[in-house]
Amino acid sequence: MIRFSSDYTEGAHPQILQALIDTNMAQTGGYGEDSFCDEAKALILKALGAEPLAGTEQLSGPELASAISSAASPQHPAVHFLVGGTQTNLTVIAACLRPHQGVLCAPTGHINVHETGAVEACGHKVLALPGIQESSLPYRQYGKITAAQVEEAVLSHQANGAFEHIVQPGMVYISHPTEYGTLYTKEEMTALSAVCRKYGLPLFVDGARLSYGLAAHKHDPAYDLTLRDLVELADVFYIGGTKVGLLFGEAVVIMNPAIARDFRYLMKQKGGMLAKGRLLGVQFGASFQPAEDDPGLTLYESMGRHAVSLAQKMKAGFRSAGFPLFIDSPTNQQFIILPDEVLPKLAEDFAFEPFDRFDDTHQIIRFCTSWATPEENVDALIQAICKLSGK
Amino acid sequence: MIRFSSDYTEGAHPQILQALIDTNMAQTGGYGEDSFCDEAKALILKALGAEPLAGTEQLSGPELASAISSAASPQHPAVHFLVGGTQTNLTVIAACLRPHQGVLCAPTGHINVHETGAVEACGHKVLALPGIQESSLPYRQYGKITAAQVEEAVLSHQANGAFEHIVQPGMVYISHPTEYGTLYTKEEMTALSAVCRKYGLPLFVDGARLSYGLAAHKHDPAYDLTLRDLVELADVFYIGGTKVGLLFGEAVVIMNPAIARDFRYLMKQKGGMLAKGRLLGVQFGASFQPAEDDPGLTLYESMGRHAVSLAQKMKAGFRSAGFPLFIDSPTNQQFIILPDEVLPKLAEDFAFEPFDRFDDTHQIIRFCTSWATPEENVDALIQAICKLSGK
Amino acid sequence: MIRFSSDYTEGAHPQILQALIDTNMAQTGGYGEDSFCDEAKALILKALGAEPLAGTEQLSGPELASAISSAASPQHPAVHFLVGGTQTNLTVIAACLRPHQGVLCAPTGHINVHETGAVEACGHKVLALPGIQESSLPYRQYGKITAAQVEEAVLSHQANGAFEHIVQPGMVYISHPTEYGTLYTKEEMTALSAVCRKYGLPLFVDGARLSYGLAAHKHDPAYDLTLRDLVELADVFYIGGTKVGLLFGEAVVIMNPAIARDFRYLMKQKGGMLAKGRLLGVQFGASFQPAEDDPGLTLYESMGRHAVSLAQKMKAGFRSAGFPLFIDSPTNQQFIILPDEVLPKLAEDFAFEPFDRFDDTHQIIRFCTSWATPEENVDALIQAICKLSGK
Amino acid sequence: MIRFSSDYTEGAHPQILQALIDTNMAQTGGYGEDSFCDEAKALILKALGAEPLAGTEQLSGPELASAISSAASPQHPAVHFLVGGTQTNLTVIAACLRPHQGVLCAPTGHINVHETGAVEACGHKVLALPGIQESSLPYRQYGKITAAQVEEAVLSHQANGAFEHIVQPGMVYISHPTEYGTLYTKEEMTALSAVCRKYGLPLFVDGARLSYGLAAHKHDPAYDLTLRDLVELADVFYIGGTKVGLLFGEAVVIMNPAIARDFRYLMKQKGGMLAKGRLLGVQFGASFQPAEDDPGLTLYESMGRHAVSLAQKMKAGFRSAGFPLFIDSPTNQQFIILPDEVLPKLAEDFAFEPFDRFDDTHQIIRFCTSWATPEENVDALIQAICKLSGK
Repeated sequence: MIRFSSDYTEGAHPQILQALIDTNMAQTGGYGEDSFCDEAKALILKALGAEPLAGTEQLSGPELASAISSAASPQHPAVHFLVGGTQTNLTVIAACLRPHQGVLCAPTGHINVHETGAVEACGHKVLALPGIQESSLPYRQYGKITAAQVEEAVLSHQANGAFEHIVQPGMVYISHPTEYGTLYTKEEMTALSAVCRKYGLPLFVDGARLSYGLAAHKHDPAYDLTLRDLVELADVFYIGGTKVGLLFGEAVVIMNPAIARDFRYLMKQKGGMLAKGRLLGVQFGASFQPAEDDPGLTLYESMGRHAVSLAQKMKAGFRSAGFPLFIDSPTNQQFIILPDEVLPKLAEDFAFEPFDRFDDTHQIIRFCTSWATPEENVDALIQAICKLSGK
Repeated sequence: MIRFSSDYTEGAHPQILQALIDTNMAQTGGYGEDSFCDEAKALILKALGAEPLAGTEQLSGPELASAISSAASPQHPAVHFLVGGTQTNLTVIAACLRPHQGVLCAPTGHINVHETGAVEACGHKVLALPGIQESSLPYRQYGKITAAQVEEAVLSHQANGAFEHIVQPGMVYISHPTEYGTLYTKEEMTALSAVCRKYGLPLFVDGARLSYGLAAHKHDPAYDLTLRDLVELADVFYIGGTKVGLLFGEAVVIMNPAIARDFRYLMKQKGGMLAKGRLLGVQFGASFQPAEDDPGLTLYESMGRHAVSLAQKMKAGFRSAGFPLFIDSPTNQQFIILPDEVLPKLAEDFAFEPFDRFDDTHQIIRFCTSWATPEENVDALIQAICKLSGK
Repeated sequence: MIRFSSDYTEGAHPQILQALIDTNMAQTGGYGEDSFCDEAKALILKALGAEPLAGTEQLSGPELASAISSAASPQHPAVHFLVGGTQTNLTVIAACLRPHQGVLCAPTGHINVHETGAVEACGHKVLALPGIQESSLPYRQYGKITAAQVEEAVLSHQANGAFEHIVQPGMVYISHPTEYGTLYTKEEMTALSAVCRKYGLPLFVDGARLSYGLAAHKHDPAYDLTLRDLVELADVFYIGGTKVGLLFGEAVVIMNPAIARDFRYLMKQKGGMLAKGRLLGVQFGASFQPAEDDPGLTLYESMGRHAVSLAQKMKAGFRSAGFPLFIDSPTNQQFIILPDEVLPKLAEDFAFEPFDRFDDTHQIIRFCTSWATPEENVDALIQAICKLSGK
Repeated sequence: MIRFSSDYTEGAHPQILQALIDTNMAQTGGYGEDSFCDEAKALILKALGAEPLAGTEQLSGPELASAISSAASPQHPAVHFLVGGTQTNLTVIAACLRPHQGVLCAPTGHINVHETGAVEACGHKVLALPGIQESSLPYRQYGKITAAQVEEAVLSHQANGAFEHIVQPGMVYISHPTEYGTLYTKEEMTALSAVCRKYGLPLFVDGARLSYGLAAHKHDPAYDLTLRDLVELADVFYIGGTKVGLLFGEAVVIMNPAIARDFRYLMKQKGGMLAKGRLLGVQFGASFQPAEDDPGLTLYESMGRHAVSLAQKMKAGFRSAGFPLFIDSPTNQQFIILPDEVLPKLAEDFAFEPFDRFDDTHQIIRFCTSWATPEENVDALIQAICKLSGK
């Protein structure tokens, strides 16, 4: 059985696992206050084109926390490590909103449909932006929201005579890549950011698969959004590790001081502060070291490129075999329209994820590659589908 | 620097780390639905003297969840794996209570003082049982609550003319060992359990350091509470892994079907369902295998015994050196009364945790051993304190 | 200025106000435990064809609460008085759900769009049933949901491979009348009730305008749902007072013992337990006395009939004047399609509520009558619109 | 039966009831946006020595809300009307805190012991200030907290090495009068206010019985705190109506713009925005008109003085009859130590509230007067106790 069902079917990238092995018996303090975390944060800041806050070396405890919070900015983001995506989403959102505010997002947003109401359990309504049927859009817009939609939501809230009876839009949540594997361009993200700033809405970018989004550029220069752009344009985003080669872990990057304030309290309260926090530092540290097999890239970049290259190869294979794409996805998730009758046969050797029904006789199937996918697995899949299609 | 500051200063026990290495590139499904988790649950059930539910092999999805929930019992507990302690506490408590109910616990209970209001953030008041000053008790009672206290709390709630204006006691939370390293005897736990059942209050035992509690029996037969007793007496408890040799992880064991019902929904909502859930299965599986250096014990038991033996040796060392014990602790946490003036000197080579001030010139210091503590570290500490005391 | 903008533009019906005046200086206990409340509950139970629980006369405090809770049923509903609608909705919903559950309702449901996220603030997602555009339905279905929609939502939840990652449908909320003034027939409500019972979902009926719904029968026998039917078919509903002649107040009727359990604790916690609870008893007591001008009806029925008769007259007037109806509403809310250009003129003398835009040149306008509307006000409106239409 | 069991045993003061009668059939908009509310706010601001915000006459909707919020200050407080005390407390506290923060208060604070965990249900821990046994204090300090206690709580939080694991003090809640009927002096309140401002903690004063506190000055000039002082010293307080002559209602006065911001959204979400909001305007308007029988005072002041005068007479009566005072209370609540054996006899004709047990043979009994208490009721009580005491 070869699994393309998700990008978290294996453990950790060998370079990352090795770092865990190497540091296993080192003694450190807990809860992310250790030198491994400090080093990982420094590497991440470097990759972001940012710097640690000068003059904080002598601080600790509340003074340090306060200094970092009050000075968080695109030049000096605060970086925190959490364990998983749902936890990160709910913690960041709880840090951003007052009780009467909700979070604007796409109807297909992960927080709206796949987190068992985690945001609502923190007291906030998820405000799925209305009105656009995916099928009426060009596929590049699937799963995305636009600056115009956000502006319309805010204006229509303010224009409503009963505005105080309606949840107030308080922030914007997007994923990059989205649930459809689509990506925002720099222009689109700039427009979103501008409208968010115009109306005082923090912009939060869920980067669970960020590395796979950044790698798309190599295959299509239209996908031009960089890590440094996110630092400039978002208020807070995260660099996903769980789906990109770590055992687990998400690195939250906060530019907005109002969100950075007391963020570790919220991490603790929401169950996201790992006792052996150094495990996150060790892993993210390894992830932002040069890749062993391509030292010009960080391992994080390299893992993304590996997955996306194989995904593009897979996509080409499906195309050649005559199976239409639901989306011409630039990232590691591929969405293929397959006839119902081939699925049982394909399922004998491969695991994949039914995404949605396409029509009476076809389903949309999601195939994921990841940092861990061997090329021969993709080749085996292509061979199998060619055989099934008779091409 | 040698650290006795906590029992989570290292990574994982080598046997557990090896299991992670060995399984690293295996592909599995996510969220704890994989064969590693299944095997770990079977091993844990065996250690509990319980069995998986027969007839569920053919079930999956909602049918399986429903079968397990509705049949949870001391014979067939449900087992779930979560990442950390705060997360586990808040998830279990949220699963037990209706909105107007609170959780009875000791004033020093972890949920009351060290989890940033995680329980309140789920909407529930922590009802610290009033009235008993630790210093008026025999040390064996420190950090514990009694059946009589619980009964009094319930009766006094019901007797209050304004009972509906007061949070209703809805469950009982205890730790075993407690924050003071003390332990419940089987007799005490039986009495607590009886009063809980009398008044319909689920009894929840936080076993973050459970292995260290179970190991005390070897040194003092008065500490006679076993894992199987917990299965009979509690409604839900957890087997702590984070502090006992795992990178992270807590195994929740649920006997009460009302709590077991839909528990995985709550795990997901509260951010405690790990995407690569198999990491928890692999680690707990390894932990409930025979210990390599003492195959008559599970590794989990063996790790506890190691830590407790060294803690007893350390305690004897402090005693010999003339430093009084705050508590004659039977577990891996030792609480010693040390004069202020020796602390800076001791801190040059050792990390430890200031627990509380004892008097104007003395502090209570906590020293933890763990599964990872080498005997030479304890010897070095004893040597250092002998030198400091001049004995 | 004559106001048709809502059904809460005046104070209380004179008969109700008189009861408040008559009892003003009587001394009673607080929080709804007084003889006025007892009498009002007895009158309501009589109107419901139900009876107080025998054998509870000697009970008080927790014993009484427990007896009522455990015996709540269609024969012996529990009745509680709260102050307002939002408060009642959030309290009932909090009483019904576990943390991972949400409440199914129409997209236009009051809890979904007009209560500032009150349900989410209690931790629960509002699950707006997808997919039906009002404009594709016969107007009688506007604002309503069907048994088939509920069943589909439950089955599709259970069938989803990631069901535990999705909020579980935990109850059903409907309004009768709906936000569009439409009504469920007995057949429709029976079907809804059956599907709710099949899947263990409590059915909650928001009766903020219940009297206006019950009165529709007089004008069209198709609207055949009675108060007694609600007792049989719903798990919990409320008899709205704020919009039907009381200064304020909603009477919650609970047939399901799981919801009745400890309901007063939730009322207190959520701020819905009035200190001078007797004001609610006095007002509901007066409301369920015979109407002075039609002693064969309760005042509550009589007020509903008055409003609905005038609304039907108003509707006929709009029709005669050539203004089309958006809905042929059987209750006290009328929805008329008016050209933009007549609105400023009409607004000089009348207050009304813009409900929605109909097309580029027309709006849907809501006009409400109530227990307080004098017939001459309706006549004046009809005269004005005839003048505007030139008919 | 004569009731001294609380100060909410009757309906409304006749002057207030008359205002409700006089305005009953006037038509207004809902939710507190009507001319009665506007007038009442103007009267209250005048009584506070403050003024409405100039230049807002032309604003409405979000613009008006925003202008008021951003300019709230001691010169221009925002005033809002809610229905009851628990609701007001939870709404104000939710408006003040971020998720990881708690509210400091006395252990006997109403929010800590008598509101069924309403604050926790909003996600926040109530941080009862530790350590002072009432019986070790002079009675004038009962139920109060000091600036020193607040400072110590903040400093000890910040000094704790695990500060992020502990709920952060985020605001201070006090009652004036307290649950014991005691009062803060201006000096004490000034000190509290100063420490709150030093540490950025909003100071919230629960004035459910404020009128009875302000009236104490007439009997003892030591009680020198005025309404205008509260405007200067608190961030938010409320003027209690439920216990002072209204059917219901609390007027929240907000000086701090961060709390004022979007306050009406929170009122709506928490169920505290009355549909017929004008009822609150009418009642508070009447309450801040000159008293008919003493036009030099507002009715609100006059009602407070009436109750306190009678309470002082009652206190003198108990003293003369030889029954010791538990507290020499300056307000309308009197706490008397009575022997168990006299209680059944006294209960034949009088209702009162057992407050606490004093010793094996005595109870502390609370007797309340109110705006509604006739002097002959107090005389009857004094006669009865003289008879019981044989004096």
